[in-house]
Amino acid sequence: MKGRQRTLAVYPGSFDPITNGHTDIIERGLKVFDEVLVAILVNPEKQSLFTIDERLATIRSAYRRNKRVRVDTFSGLLADYSVRVGATVIVRGLRAVSDFEYEFQMALMNRRLDKRIETVFMMPAERYSYLSSRLVKEVFQLGGDVGGLVPAVVERRLRAKYPRRPTGRQR
Amino acid sequence: MKGRQRTLAVYPGSFDPITNGHTDIIERGLKVFDEVLVAILVNPEKQSLFTIDERLATIRSAYRRNKRVRVDTFSGLLADYSVRVGATVIVRGLRAVSDFEYEFQMALMNRRLDKRIETVFMMPAERYSYLSSRLVKEVFQLGGDVGGLVPAVVERRLRAKYPRRPTGRQR
Amino acid sequence: MKGRQRTLAVYPGSFDPITNGHTDIIERGLKVFDEVLVAILVNPEKQSLFTIDERLATIRSAYRRNKRVRVDTFSGLLADYSVRVGATVIVRGLRAVSDFEYEFQMALMNRRLDKRIETVFMMPAERYSYLSSRLVKEVFQLGGDVGGLVPAVVERRLRAKYPRRPTGRQR
Amino acid sequence: MKGRQRTLAVYPGSFDPITNGHTDIIERGLKVFDEVLVAILVNPEKQSLFTIDERLATIRSAYRRNKRVRVDTFSGLLADYSVRVGATVIVRGLRAVSDFEYEFQMALMNRRLDKRIETVFMMPAERYSYLSSRLVKEVFQLGGDVGGLVPAVVERRLRAKYPRRPTGRQR
Amino acid sequence: MKGRQRTLAVYPGSFDPITNGHTDIIERGLKVFDEVLVAILVNPEKQSLFTIDERLATIRSAYRRNKRVRVDTFSGLLADYSVRVGATVIVRGLRAVSDFEYEFQMALMNRRLDKRIETVFMMPAERYSYLSSRLVKEVFQLGGDVGGLVPAVVERRLRAKYPRRPTGRQR
Amino acid sequence: MKGRQRTLAVYPGSFDPITNGHTDIIERGLKVFDEVLVAILVNPEKQSLFTIDERLATIRSAYRRNKRVRVDTFSGLLADYSVRVGATVIVRGLRAVSDFEYEFQMALMNRRLDKRIETVFMMPAERYSYLSSRLVKEVFQLGGDVGGLVPAVVERRLRAKYPRRPTGRQR
Repeated sequence: MKGRQRTLAVYPGSFDPITNGHTDIIERGLKVFDEVLVAILVNPEKQSLFTIDERLATIRSAYRRNKRVRVDTFSGLLADYSVRVGATVIVRGLRAVSDFEYEFQMALMNRRLDKRIETVFMMPAERYSYLSSRLVKEVFQLGGDVGGLVPAVVERRLRAKYPRRPTGRQR
Repeated sequence: MKGRQRTLAVYPGSFDPITNGHTDIIERGLKVFDEVLVAILVNPEKQSLFTIDERLATIRSAYRRNKRVRVDTFSGLLADYSVRVGATVIVRGLRAVSDFEYEFQMALMNRRLDKRIETVFMMPAERYSYLSSRLVKEVFQLGGDVGGLVPAVVERRLRAKYPRRPTGRQR
Repeated sequence: MKGRQRTLAVYPGSFDPITNGHTDIIERGLKVFDEVLVAILVNPEKQSLFTIDERLATIRSAYRRNKRVRVDTFSGLLADYSVRVGATVIVRGLRAVSDFEYEFQMALMNRRLDKRIETVFMMPAERYSYLSSRLVKEVFQLGGDVGGLVPAVVERRLRAKYPRRPTGRQR
Repeated sequence: MKGRQRTLAVYPGSFDPITNGHTDIIERGLKVFDEVLVAILVNPEKQSLFTIDERLATIRSAYRRNKRVRVDTFSGLLADYSVRVGATVIVRGLRAVSDFEYEFQMALMNRRLDKRIETVFMMPAERYSYLSSRLVKEVFQLGGDVGGLVPAVVERRLRAKYPRRPTGRQR
Repeated sequence: MKGRQRTLAVYPGSFDPITNGHTDIIERGLKVFDEVLVAILVNPEKQSLFTIDERLATIRSAYRRNKRVRVDTFSGLLADYSVRVGATVIVRGLRAVSDFEYEFQMALMNRRLDKRIETVFMMPAERYSYLSSRLVKEVFQLGGDVGGLVPAVVERRLRAKYPRRPTGRQR
Repeated sequence: MKGRQRTLAVYPGSFDPITNGHTDIIERGLKVFDEVLVAILVNPEKQSLFTIDERLATIRSAYRRNKRVRVDTFSGLLADYSVRVGATVIVRGLRAVSDFEYEFQMALMNRRLDKRIETVFMMPAERYSYLSSRLVKEVFQLGGDVGGLVPAVVERRLRAKYPRRPTGRQR
């Protein structure tokens, strides 16, 4: 029996910014697929903290030594994009029940738009089950410590964005 | 970059009997993985309609032409079994929120028992979202039609088990 | 435009025993449908506290003055039974998310078994959202007060079944 | 026993635009109730794609041959509106667990505002379980095919709104 | 064994306005803790109906006779604030499954930010399970009666904000 | 203002056996309440692995140095028992959405049975969110390692119960 071709999995998201919950899913994806393509959704209508270029640079920096992780941006339909880049799989993290229904709605629509694409769901480590980009931004802006929640490069960039962050916070 | 090795995905379950919801997941698994190993859980404490041998024969018959589907039985820990057969992935179908929490509990425990194994979740077609082996058995025993819900070989075996099934049911 | 025919709604269940959560749904059903047929499922495999005859008598007694409520028993497929008695609607109460998925699974299967039948869901009053036949039996057997949770006739029958119920309970 | 009066069921929503999930519920409602009144909520604070007049025209066009479906607009409290038009029932579709809690909150508040009104929930066909007006708009604007997800008249109006829709999309 | 010190529980929220669901939780908290500190979150980015001063005055007025309830405002991280005021417990009401995941996310993040603080969840009375500040405002603005849903002082202030509220509403 | 009396919190359960998820909740309870009374439910109808005496001995052994933890057994209504021992609070752990509804049903019934008792919910550490007594027993019986999931005394007792546990399992 001849082997299947190499599998490229698209991991789409806003990544504003990428968190350790995201990188946890990427690492799990690498155990199962040949290549993971982190695909940053370009959505001009949604307000963001980091520009698309900053997000591209941040994620590329975090994976600069891993040839099996690629980073790209996309707009339009995810199903179209996935077919165009030669992916057969969309990977999504499932943290909680509330993720579940939105993700299923998306997966069913993408399946309807292009039958060649399958969505697979993976679970992050329990310690990231409460983590989201929104929460990271909120906590950081209020002076909280986000070490251990985001890659070091993201923490540095957060500090650059908010230089007047209170530092006298007792812990 | 050298390609990843062939991926063997274990698809565990009771399959008492296998339904079209199960075969739908197997087919989706084949789009993503090189080989799918349908692994029937041997659980002497759980009452079943079909014997393990009947279930093995039924599933093998349904996939006799597909070299990429293997069928086996296992007892003991799924994580141990998966490693022993050389699998790196466990595939599970997620139909509904109620599946979600049980499946996550299992996935987290399996991950704890052996870090080499990842669980991925896939969604069956919407038309199978309400389907389960239990429901198929219940409906058949009450005289309902299960055509389109199970492979033809299962329907034949159900008829053989329940020969006195009322046939005069108006639809 | 000619009026629709009279609507008969089947309200199926075990009713072991009927609770005020059930009667609440029956009363709501009567606001919407011409007639409500309380249909007691005969399931010899399930252990019950009250016999089918006791349940029939209890519910008939509770509704003896209401000509728009009928009480019956059924076995076999609910969809078949509903068509046979001329019903077009199955009514079910939805108390909580956990009810939701089981009920939807049943509704989808019944719809598949007979397209002529529609299931509609109604919400009981909030004060019954935690009520179930099982909980009533459990609380009563442990000496708790179930007044206000079941019709008076049910409370009398519970006392008859458990005559040695501790009465010195302080509240 | 004299029959109940004719039942008018209000089916409220934004319908921006109406989808096949909505029409599926309307058709199910017509199996159970004498008349279904599609009631478009006028909410000046919510941004919409179609004007109220466009939505009225679209839905009227879709049901122009069905005398048992009426279309209207309303503002203010749904409970007040329902009583004013002589309805006794509010119909809502329930697709998923996430719908459930919002719908229950609304149903309980409406019941509190006017006891004469009951809310009944119906399930759309499984194939529409992931469908929403928002998703239809999003997919269409990104160049996706919405055929089979909305009535033909809605698809034509979407094309009129977005004439530059990319057509070279490979499927 | 020496007794534990007095327990101060922080009850944080927007309270825009405080509802009877909130006061129900405060009263339950008083059965369990020595003192409850109602902590109004100052969030300049979120649009509100009542100013912070109005909310402070309203809640203080409602509890002016209860020495065990204090009212305060806070901004920044709740975990920091709680430690600063000497609280060891954060109290939150849980009404429904949809509350559950958001609340858990917050509780886990607060626990991570400061291990000294524990979050405990309490259930409001069933009759408030559908109540929220948002729903109260919406219903009042549409002319609905909110008596029994908010303290009297809140109802008076709502009337002062919306003097032209239609009064001829039939019930 | 005079301080509240010392607070005794009942923590009820089957504890067959006690897990680190349970001990995590006990420790959190001790941060909030003066005393935690671990109350083992005596339920002769439910099959158990450990006898009531074994469970009493195990939990007492685990807390023999902590004077603020007491261990007891109870049968009958939890609300009655709690009042009898002078408790004002019932503590329950909430791990997941599926816990939520069962726990709420119980809490509402207990509140109805005795208004003096409040139930508070606490969250275990994320790493125990998938843990249950049932799962521990299942994994141990299949030869899996439960170190880190249960107190050491429980692990020793499990080994004593199942001396032939396979030991050659590779990890």
